[in-house]
Amino acid sequence: MTYRIALVGCGTVGIGFLKILRDKGEHLRSSYGFDAKVVAVSDKMKGAVLADGGIDLKAFVAHVEAGRPIGLFDPKAVNGLDSVETIRRAKADIVVEVAWTDIKTAEPATTHIREAFKAGSHVVTTNKGPATLFHDELEAEARKHGVTWRHEGIVMSGTPVFDLLQFCLAGNEVKEMKGILNGTTNFILTKMEDEGMAYKDALGLAQKLGYAEADPTADVEGFDALAKILVLSNTVLGANLKTDQVKREGISKITLEDIAKAKKDGRRYKLVASAKKEGGKVIAQVMPVQLPLSDPLAGVSGAMNALTFTTDLSGPITIQGPGAGQMETGFAVLIDALNIHRACQAKKVVK
Amino acid sequence: MTYRIALVGCGTVGIGFLKILRDKGEHLRSSYGFDAKVVAVSDKMKGAVLADGGIDLKAFVAHVEAGRPIGLFDPKAVNGLDSVETIRRAKADIVVEVAWTDIKTAEPATTHIREAFKAGSHVVTTNKGPATLFHDELEAEARKHGVTWRHEGIVMSGTPVFDLLQFCLAGNEVKEMKGILNGTTNFILTKMEDEGMAYKDALGLAQKLGYAEADPTADVEGFDALAKILVLSNTVLGANLKTDQVKREGISKITLEDIAKAKKDGRRYKLVASAKKEGGKVIAQVMPVQLPLSDPLAGVSGAMNALTFTTDLSGPITIQGPGAGQMETGFAVLIDALNIHRACQAKKVVK
Repeated sequence: MTYRIALVGCGTVGIGFLKILRDKGEHLRSSYGFDAKVVAVSDKMKGAVLADGGIDLKAFVAHVEAGRPIGLFDPKAVNGLDSVETIRRAKADIVVEVAWTDIKTAEPATTHIREAFKAGSHVVTTNKGPATLFHDELEAEARKHGVTWRHEGIVMSGTPVFDLLQFCLAGNEVKEMKGILNGTTNFILTKMEDEGMAYKDALGLAQKLGYAEADPTADVEGFDALAKILVLSNTVLGANLKTDQVKREGISKITLEDIAKAKKDGRRYKLVASAKKEGGKVIAQVMPVQLPLSDPLAGVSGAMNALTFTTDLSGPITIQGPGAGQMETGFAVLIDALNIHRACQAKKVVK
Repeated sequence: MTYRIALVGCGTVGIGFLKILRDKGEHLRSSYGFDAKVVAVSDKMKGAVLADGGIDLKAFVAHVEAGRPIGLFDPKAVNGLDSVETIRRAKADIVVEVAWTDIKTAEPATTHIREAFKAGSHVVTTNKGPATLFHDELEAEARKHGVTWRHEGIVMSGTPVFDLLQFCLAGNEVKEMKGILNGTTNFILTKMEDEGMAYKDALGLAQKLGYAEADPTADVEGFDALAKILVLSNTVLGANLKTDQVKREGISKITLEDIAKAKKDGRRYKLVASAKKEGGKVIAQVMPVQLPLSDPLAGVSGAMNALTFTTDLSGPITIQGPGAGQMETGFAVLIDALNIHRACQAKKVVK
């Protein structure tokens, strides 16, 4: 089956996804019966192209990586549409929404997703804003238009979370989730413990390596991890929590002395995002926690992420992997597209 | 959709699966559209029942757990058939094959599976023998009869391995696998390192707790882990290895001194089963390895299992969970049945 794909946002993740399609197209066709035709790309900074017959990915990726405007790629195509017009006119089966988005307002991602639903397109996004702030509304809108949306990449990039629950752990009741959901803070804590590096120096190194932003607040004060555990609480545990209902503390006050003391007690500091059912309610928080070394999360080092699901049948299941990266997040888009493909096949029967 | 299920083998795992169906039937129906009707149970030691209208699971589990013969459960049913006759006459949509099986010959599991295919039934098994010795033949036979077989439980029980690859990591190329696939040996090594317990004492404790058999050879000499990495090599990496092509060394020669020395070097002994592609060939082995503490497998303690997939797109992905247990393995059967259900829905379209 051939899927018309519109890519909204052509930054690191978008390019990563295009490279995967470019390099693995034949494999995806022969192994999964999944054929992708990219018919539109729109990026606020780089320009836009809409080419009904499909875009040559090899040439396009080279063009964009050379820093040339997207609008100059194919003079015969429709060029220069904004993102919303692109979504409206692309007649895409799947809109891949990976545009730069303000985490506080979840825009423009949420608008893109709504427009895609209205256009009858399924959506894949790696922006966590929409699911953090508007999950239930977007679910309802998707249903209304007979489409679906997937967002595997929003918690741990290409390391599976939602798919793991849906396809591998279905039938379990999840009682608790506990994770290391921010790579930057885990990198800093690992450097502090393993190399005795001061917080300030470890943060500086993280910034130098591109793990942390110039303003590191979202990472080090736990806002990023909070958004992720909020989405997990609301989608997996059926909570209806808002940001201010999640207790939050970052790692900026943790000293080398704290870490040394914990180490002496056989424990290790980690920034743990957790959520559990308690008396009919869901309690979620982001906190520095002294984990015993026997905890699967205690062994997670550097910029890696991990998440433990405590289940009634399968016991505690922990998944660990990179929580970021161009190809990793590009893969998160791919697996969502493949699972939309699977669902499309199954759906036709049910109707 | 209602699935007629025949259970072959009514030991710990079989009962675990029946308990899940008993307790979660309504949830499975409403959430997944999966309705199970158990029409036959056959056990070499306990007897057999074939009841076309379905078996009342609450009463049946109580009956078996009270130690009463299966043949006395329902006098109006067909009683006393052997396993092959049960499979032939049950007209089951899914045969759940969990009979006690000799790992060296993979019998009677392989016969059960073949008979099920001939009867037009899909198969779920938790016996690793058939996939270890006859994977490709059984694949071909299943295809010939238009059915499928699944065996999620054979490597890490209810901790996902095959489903993880199929549904969450599809599109990746797996380059290497490295795992702790035997809980008994990991329990022993953990006791030796954490509590300074001698090998002999740790083994004795494992036997007392039911982790190790009276004859512990299969576990401690690495045969169990070998069978698992062999299946993974042949199914995931497309190798065609036989048992004697896998290098194997157990843990029985590891001393407290070895462990102390490794610890001083910041390393930890684990029995690691691994397989990787190297120059067009697949090299698999089971070996005690001194892992650096930063390796995700180094943090796996006690009887837990874990497996790292090194992939081209998602990076290294590690899954950790219990590698055994009644409800865990019962769940492995359930998830296979659910995924057969998903495939049945999708298949109708493709035809």
